[in-house]
Amino acid sequence: MYYAGVDIGGKNVKMGIVDDFGNIASSMEYKTQMERGYDAILLEMIGNIKSLCDQAGLEFEELRGIGIGVPGIVNSRAGLVMSCANLNWKGVDLANDVQNLTGKVCKVCNDANCAALGEQRFGSGRNYKNLVFITLGTGIGSGIIIDGNLFEGLGCAGAEAGHMGICIDDESECACGNKGCWESYISASALVAQTKRAVQKNPNSLLAQICEDGVSGKSVFIAAAQGDATANSVIEKYIGYVTYGIIGLTNILHPQAFVLGGGIANEGATLILPIKKMLNEYIDNNGFYPYVDVVGASLGNSAGFLGAAALVM
Amino acid sequence: MYYAGVDIGGKNVKMGIVDDFGNIASSMEYKTQMERGYDAILLEMIGNIKSLCDQAGLEFEELRGIGIGVPGIVNSRAGLVMSCANLNWKGVDLANDVQNLTGKVCKVCNDANCAALGEQRFGSGRNYKNLVFITLGTGIGSGIIIDGNLFEGLGCAGAEAGHMGICIDDESECACGNKGCWESYISASALVAQTKRAVQKNPNSLLAQICEDGVSGKSVFIAAAQGDATANSVIEKYIGYVTYGIIGLTNILHPQAFVLGGGIANEGATLILPIKKMLNEYIDNNGFYPYVDVVGASLGNSAGFLGAAALVM
Repeated sequence: MYYAGVDIGGKNVKMGIVDDFGNIASSMEYKTQMERGYDAILLEMIGNIKSLCDQAGLEFEELRGIGIGVPGIVNSRAGLVMSCANLNWKGVDLANDVQNLTGKVCKVCNDANCAALGEQRFGSGRNYKNLVFITLGTGIGSGIIIDGNLFEGLGCAGAEAGHMGICIDDESECACGNKGCWESYISASALVAQTKRAVQKNPNSLLAQICEDGVSGKSVFIAAAQGDATANSVIEKYIGYVTYGIIGLTNILHPQAFVLGGGIANEGATLILPIKKMLNEYIDNNGFYPYVDVVGASLGNSAGFLGAAALVM
Repeated sequence: MYYAGVDIGGKNVKMGIVDDFGNIASSMEYKTQMERGYDAILLEMIGNIKSLCDQAGLEFEELRGIGIGVPGIVNSRAGLVMSCANLNWKGVDLANDVQNLTGKVCKVCNDANCAALGEQRFGSGRNYKNLVFITLGTGIGSGIIIDGNLFEGLGCAGAEAGHMGICIDDESECACGNKGCWESYISASALVAQTKRAVQKNPNSLLAQICEDGVSGKSVFIAAAQGDATANSVIEKYIGYVTYGIIGLTNILHPQAFVLGGGIANEGATLILPIKKMLNEYIDNNGFYPYVDVVGASLGNSAGFLGAAALVM
C-alpha cells in the first residue's frame, strides 16, 4: 500500500510517497510561498502529490490516503487547523478540503507530532512503543507516543513539553503566557543567547573568536571540539537544562525512550550521551525504576512527512 | 458484584467491601502496626476482609477480587511491591501471596494511583475520563487517568508529578536526587516551612499569633480567613506554586480536569478557585485550547480503598 505524507512548513513543503514500511518511493521539497494563501498552497500540494505518484510509477488511484503535518495548533480528531502563525491560517478545514478535492482519506496533525510518529514507526524510536520526541530547533516541538499511538490530550492541546515551566523564579515571560518555559532554556535561540552571554564574559576565549563571524547553535560545539573551556561550560549548562526537563517528563510519563531531533541534536553523542548518563543516574537513584533510553532522531527532514503518511496507514 | 478494596498506610489500614457503583457495603480502619512484619499484616488483612463480608451479609465466596493500594514503588502489572519505606517492605510478591491465601484475583497498585482511580470512578472526577489527581499531603502523590484507565508509564514508574522540577535554580536537593521538585514547594510540609518563614519576617502579624501554639498546613488559612495580609501573601505564593506545576502538566497532558486531594485541598474553594482561574486564563491565552476543570477530591479517606477495589472490577 502507498500513502502520501506532507510536511507543510512556513518556508518549505516536504512530501513523499511512502509504503507501509516507511520506504520512500518518491519525494520532493519546494517553497511554501505562504503569501499565496491557503487555496493555492492546497492545489499545488495536490498537484505535486500526483506528480510524485507518476515518479513512483503509481496511479493516483492506488494511493490509500494523505497525511499532513502543519506547524500550528491542529485538532487532529476534527482535521482542523485551528491556528498556524507561520502560514497565516486560522480555522481551516484542511482534512475535509483535501478529502473533497481528492476523494482520499486525509488526516492532519501538528508537525512535531507527525515527526514523533515518523521516528517511532520508522526511525530511531522504532524499538519503542512509548517514547517522547523533542526537537531542539528554533523553537521546541514535542510529541508523545503511548502504546504505539500519538497521545495528544484533550482537544489535541497536550504534548507541548516546551511550555512546561522549569524555573518558577524566572521573570521573563514566554509568548504562551507562562514563565521559565523549558523552551526558553533549550531552543536553538536560547543556546545562541547563552553563547552570546558567555562570549561577553569571556572576550578572549576561542568561543569569542569563533563567534566573531556570527553566532549559531553550532558555535559552542565547534569551540568545544577544540577544547575551549568557555564553550564546554556553556554546553554543560545547556545539557543540564535539557536533562532537567527530561527528568521532569520521566517522572510524569516514564517512557521507554526520548528521541531528540532538530538542529542541535545533530551534534550527536556529544550532546546525547551526557543526557542519557545523567537521566539514568537519576533513575538508578531509587533502584527500582527501569532505564530510559535517549537517542538521536534518525530520519532528519523526512521524519515529518513519514509520520504524516503514518497517520493514514 | 462485590469487591474488597484495601488501602495500606504506614499508620492505618482502611478497607471496604464495595459494589460496582462504589457503594460501600461495609468498611473499617485499624492500626497497621507495621513492626509486626509482612506476614502478620497480610493475615490480619485477610481476616478483616472476611469480617467485613460478614458485616455486609455476604459470603466470602461471593467476593470477586481484592485490590490493594500500597504507599511505595509498586509494579502493578507484576503485582509486586518493589519498595515501601513506610512498611519496610522490599520486593514482596503481594498480589500472588494474597491470591494463594484466598483464591481470589488480587491486584496491587501505588496508593496515590488507587486514590486517583477511586476519584475518577466514584468521586468528583467521575465526569472525566482524562484527569490528573494530585494529593496535597505531607508529601505529594499523583495519579494519571487516560481514557478511563490508570496511566503508570514503563515499570509503573510514571505519575510521580511531585518530582517534576519546577525550579532549576533551586539548590536544595530532594531525596529523589532532583532539585526544585514540585513537591518541595506544594506539600503540607513545604507550606508549613513557608508559613514559618513568613512568621519570622512578620512577628507582629496575626499569622504569627496563630502560629504560637504550633504551625500546621491550616495555620495560614485560619489567619487569612481573619483578613491577615501576611497569611494572604503566603497563600497567594503557594497557589502560584501549585498552579505553575499544573500548567506544566497541562502542557504535557492537557487532561479534562485536575482533582486535588489531601489535607490542604480540604480548604476548598479558597484554594481551588484561584488555581482554576489562573490555569484557564493561561489556557485562554492562545484561544484554541479547551478549558480544564479543577475540583476538590470528594471521597476523602475512602478514595484509596474505593480505587483499590476498582482495580479488580
